[in-house]
Amino acid sequence: MKVFMIGEAANHKNKLAALLKTPCDIIALPREAAYASEYDQRIGRDDVIISLRFSRKDEAAPAFRLLHVPGAGLDGIDIPSLPVECEVCNVFEHEIPIAEFVMAAMLQWEIRLDALRQSFGSDTWSDTYRARVPHGEIHGKTLAIIGFGRIGRTIAQRARAFGVRVVAVDQYAANTEGLADVVLTPDRLPEALAAADFLVISCPLTDQTRGLIGDAELQAMKPSSVLINVSRAPIADEAALFDALSRRVISGAFLDVWYGYPTGADDRVLPSRFRFDDLPNAFCTPHSSAWTDALPGRRYAFIAANIDRLRSGEPRLNVVRAAMPNNREKTSIQGATVP
Amino acid sequence: MKVFMIGEAANHKNKLAALLKTPCDIIALPREAAYASEYDQRIGRDDVIISLRFSRKDEAAPAFRLLHVPGAGLDGIDIPSLPVECEVCNVFEHEIPIAEFVMAAMLQWEIRLDALRQSFGSDTWSDTYRARVPHGEIHGKTLAIIGFGRIGRTIAQRARAFGVRVVAVDQYAANTEGLADVVLTPDRLPEALAAADFLVISCPLTDQTRGLIGDAELQAMKPSSVLINVSRAPIADEAALFDALSRRVISGAFLDVWYGYPTGADDRVLPSRFRFDDLPNAFCTPHSSAWTDALPGRRYAFIAANIDRLRSGEPRLNVVRAAMPNNREKTSIQGATVP
Repeated sequence: MKVFMIGEAANHKNKLAALLKTPCDIIALPREAAYASEYDQRIGRDDVIISLRFSRKDEAAPAFRLLHVPGAGLDGIDIPSLPVECEVCNVFEHEIPIAEFVMAAMLQWEIRLDALRQSFGSDTWSDTYRARVPHGEIHGKTLAIIGFGRIGRTIAQRARAFGVRVVAVDQYAANTEGLADVVLTPDRLPEALAAADFLVISCPLTDQTRGLIGDAELQAMKPSSVLINVSRAPIADEAALFDALSRRVISGAFLDVWYGYPTGADDRVLPSRFRFDDLPNAFCTPHSSAWTDALPGRRYAFIAANIDRLRSGEPRLNVVRAAMPNNREKTSIQGATVP
Repeated sequence: MKVFMIGEAANHKNKLAALLKTPCDIIALPREAAYASEYDQRIGRDDVIISLRFSRKDEAAPAFRLLHVPGAGLDGIDIPSLPVECEVCNVFEHEIPIAEFVMAAMLQWEIRLDALRQSFGSDTWSDTYRARVPHGEIHGKTLAIIGFGRIGRTIAQRARAFGVRVVAVDQYAANTEGLADVVLTPDRLPEALAAADFLVISCPLTDQTRGLIGDAELQAMKPSSVLINVSRAPIADEAALFDALSRRVISGAFLDVWYGYPTGADDRVLPSRFRFDDLPNAFCTPHSSAWTDALPGRRYAFIAANIDRLRSGEPRLNVVRAAMPNNREKTSIQGATVP
């Protein structure tokens, strides 16, 4: 069995090697191997590919056993271009850092710790102390969470501990584990928008969620409200969001995900057609929310255990497409698929 | 009945007036009235004073009914200088913003949201994305909380929701409400120091806690650890803390409380003999942790209700010294009194 690690996945080659019980050849391939067929003849029927991206345009992909995505999002994977005998698995663990990032964003919005620090100086202390300006609290605020899957629920668990009211929007309304104050079905999204002090987008990008937050939805939000996108950028319409932030239809946004991504080792693309980073009320970050030192260890431990299961014949965990003909459409993504 | 509001308390005169059911004259006095006797002849036996500070050096204080401190800390009140018939009450509500501030500090330390924002630019996005540096998580870290009173427990409740391990140090070891993983008596402080990734000081300043964190205690902490002081500065020895931060005996500190405070309307004092604000690993803020827009409303609602109770003869809440002779030493401050 060979394990091919494509692109940035290959940075974790040593980590995977240390975690695998199954003896494997682990082979790093460049980013381009996700799209180009020139490496395909090296890939065998029993092999595993670990990659965030995979597609074949004009040629059939080689037959292989398992595509393990080293993340949760499947939007980089062109499922129909995969051979039918190929199983597809994904991996989570990022709900922890993403929830921490979202809570940090909400607390940053209310407290502005960096501005408080900048206001402090030994020589000006007495006057600064007397002229302190009060900041905000997240306590008692309302957080609307669009997509109440693993990430949404992990955010809710933390927010609730702060006395934040959680309004979840998800089509699987029963599945709350007591973590939301209210769960609304997607047709009631306008109620969530109107109630939200903070709106977090944590649903997957699908045909149904693309452009879900557009002009009308942003207009339905409070002028004081803040949008936080840690899912995929195109769920919020690019032009509508830029316009709403520019005109202060909403107060601010924390944007960690973007409309354009580089795909190779040295290509250059813009994150958006608009310069969100020029807006003082847009907190733009480079897709960092889940990018923590602890995450790869948790993820590759999961992937190594799944490869060990493949060798021993045990069922894999987090199978998002089974290795069977006529089963290409079956997915079980966590999180809401909001219409 | 007259209500005298001294110094910064007087800023909330209109708020109190709107909340009181009892008809009262509400009179603002300058900061100096906390120390000087020149206003004393205006104060009558049935009156109420609201002030963070009160002392009389050479002369007896006038007889009055209730000193309501509009905060929790009693270190500005010289209890023996008060007339024996004067009841003293304090008020909390600040545990909520202080806990939010502490969580914001911990998340800031691990995520560095401001630095992530600074790293983002439309023109450099592709390279920044490819070269992302992972940040930390608070999940799985250990938080030691010195003083497990209202503030400590409110912090613990939030930290636990993040998967943070909480080690509390408090002499009332049984009183945890399940919010700590471990509660240690003060003699076991060294164990807490050795385990802590974050150390929060949330005990009151007393003769026993002054200088509690000195050279030896800072040496007992991990080099990667971070101290957060939201209580009173002198609990951490000034010179020892400056030295430990300068030499990276510990990694960093969030310091919101100081060694010197202005007492008048225009005096100037230094926050410390040392320039903590020149240290890159000291996050210095101007005693802001509890200074939120929502706090005065919660506090003055509590104070107004206590004044209404005084008029109707009901017992007041949060009595820290009863109006009786020979009872001057009785206090019931929440939080540990760590030796």
